[in-house]
Amino acid sequence: MNFQSWMAAVQERTERALDALLPPAATAPQRLHQAMRYATLGGGKRVRPLLCHAAGELAGADPARLDIAGCAVEMIHAYSLAHDDLPCMDNDVLRRGKPTCHVEYGEAAALLVGDALQSQAFLLLAEHALADDPRRQLEMLRLLAQAAGSRGMAGGQMIDIEGTGQQLSRAELERMHAHKTGALIRAAILLGAQCGAPLPDAEMARLDDFARRVGLLFQVVDDILDAEASTVTLGKTAGKDAAQGKATYVSAIGLAAAREMADSLRGEARAAIETFGERGRRLHELAHFIVTRTF
Amino acid sequence: MNFQSWMAAVQERTERALDALLPPAATAPQRLHQAMRYATLGGGKRVRPLLCHAAGELAGADPARLDIAGCAVEMIHAYSLAHDDLPCMDNDVLRRGKPTCHVEYGEAAALLVGDALQSQAFLLLAEHALADDPRRQLEMLRLLAQAAGSRGMAGGQMIDIEGTGQQLSRAELERMHAHKTGALIRAAILLGAQCGAPLPDAEMARLDDFARRVGLLFQVVDDILDAEASTVTLGKTAGKDAAQGKATYVSAIGLAAAREMADSLRGEARAAIETFGERGRRLHELAHFIVTRTF
Repeated sequence: MNFQSWMAAVQERTERALDALLPPAATAPQRLHQAMRYATLGGGKRVRPLLCHAAGELAGADPARLDIAGCAVEMIHAYSLAHDDLPCMDNDVLRRGKPTCHVEYGEAAALLVGDALQSQAFLLLAEHALADDPRRQLEMLRLLAQAAGSRGMAGGQMIDIEGTGQQLSRAELERMHAHKTGALIRAAILLGAQCGAPLPDAEMARLDDFARRVGLLFQVVDDILDAEASTVTLGKTAGKDAAQGKATYVSAIGLAAAREMADSLRGEARAAIETFGERGRRLHELAHFIVTRTF
Repeated sequence: MNFQSWMAAVQERTERALDALLPPAATAPQRLHQAMRYATLGGGKRVRPLLCHAAGELAGADPARLDIAGCAVEMIHAYSLAHDDLPCMDNDVLRRGKPTCHVEYGEAAALLVGDALQSQAFLLLAEHALADDPRRQLEMLRLLAQAAGSRGMAGGQMIDIEGTGQQLSRAELERMHAHKTGALIRAAILLGAQCGAPLPDAEMARLDDFARRVGLLFQVVDDILDAEASTVTLGKTAGKDAAQGKATYVSAIGLAAAREMADSLRGEARAAIETFGERGRRLHELAHFIVTRTF
C-alpha cells in the first residue's frame, strides 16, 4: 500500500475509533458530550495516531490496540487545543476551519471539555487490554501521564506563556518545544511500539531518538507554516505567533535557518531508524510528510 | 486512638505525602510547580484522603499505599477547585482562607495547574505499586478516570452550570451531586478498600452503598453551610450559591428539610456498614464528622 492510501486508511479508522470511544452525544450530560465530540471529531491530520500506528506496525502490534492508544493520545491533544484556544490562553476563534470550542459552546463548557477529555484518555488506557502483561499497560499509563503533565505538555505550555514577549535562545526554544509538542509525539510513538511485541532495549532507544527528533521537527515546521501560510490553508489563524509575541524558530533564527534545521532534523530522524529497514518504512514516510506538509 | 487524634494524624501524613508527591518547587517549570503546590498544600480538611484511609484500614491496607491513593484523589479535587474558581466558572477569589490560584498566579497558570494536577494524579496511580495484582491497579486507574470524567465530576460541573438560574427538583439535584461531588468521594472510599486485601463482593457492595450516601451527605451539609456560615468560618466565600442562582438543597427543599435529609442520610450510611462492626469505626466517625462540621 502506498503512503497516501495507508495514511488515509489510518485517518479513517482513527475517526471511527474516536467516534466509538467518545461518550455518545445522547448520553447525559448531553451538551458536554456533544462539545467533547465537536472538539475531537471531524478534523485534524491525526499526526499522533499516525505515528502510533507506524511505530506499532514496526513492533507487529494488533491494529485494534493501536486504535485505542492512538485515540488516547489524540484526546490529550484535543483537550490541549480546547484549553489553548481559551481567552485566558491564546484567545483563538478558529481551529480546523471551524469556530473554536469556547466560541461554539462557551468558555465554561470548553474548560470542562478539556478536563473530561483528559480523564477519558486515561480511561481508555486503563479499561482496554493493550498489553498481554498488565505491568506493561501500567507503564503505558505512566508514560502518557508523564507526557501530558507538568514535566511534559502542560509544563511546555507554561514555559510558552512565560516566554511570550521575550527573545528565547535556540536552546530555550528546544526545551520549550520538547515539552509542549515533543512529549506527546514521543508518547504516541512509544505507546504504539508498546502495543506490540517487546522490542530489544537498543531498538527502543533508537525509536526514542527518532521520536524526539520528529517531535522537534514537527514544531519547527509548524513555526515555518505559521509564518508563511494563510489562514485558509492552515484552518487556524495564521501569523498569530508573531502577533502575540510568541517565541518561534522563525523569530529566533530566521526563516532560512529554520528550514535548514528542519532538513537536518529529518536526516537525523531518518538515520535513527535506518537499521529497522523496511519495518521503519511508515515512520520514514511520516517524517517526510511532516516536513513537506503545507497545513 | 480517638477520632480527633486519628484524623489529625491522617491529615498530617497526607500533607507530608502531597508535599513529597508533587513536583518540587525548584524543578522547572518552577512557576507551574509552585502554583500546583499553592493550589494543593496547606489547607483543606482532606476529607477524601481521610475516607480513603478509613476504607483502607477496613481492608487491612498498607498506610503507605493509602497515602498514594488518597493523594491522587486529593489532586483531582484540588484541580477541580482551581478550575472551578476561574472567572469563566464560579469566579471566586477566596479558597481555604487564601486568594484563589488564578488571583495569585494568573488565569493561564491556574488553568495549567488544574490540567497538570489531573495528569499527576494518574501518574501516581500508574507509577507506584498499589496492589499485588497489577490488574487490580488498572481497575483502580479505571475507577479514578471514570469518577473524574464526563460521567463523573466534570459531568457534574456541566450539569451545575446548565442548572444555574433554574429551579431543580430534588431528583435532579441528586443526579447533579452524585456526579459533581459524589463520584470522587465514592472513588476515595473504593480506592482505599482496593489498596487492601480483596473484600468479598457483598462487603464491597455495602461499602459502595455507604460511599454513595456519604457523597450526597457531604453535599447537603455543604449547601447548609453555604447558606448559614460566614466567609471567615468557611475560608471561602459564603452565600455564593444563592448569589449566583445556584440550585442547592436549601433552595430546593428549604433549610429544615435539608437538615432532616442530612440526618437520614447519616442514618442510612451508618446502616450500610453496620455489619462491619469495629472495622467500620473510622468510617462511622467520618460520617458523623461530615454531618457535624462547621467549615
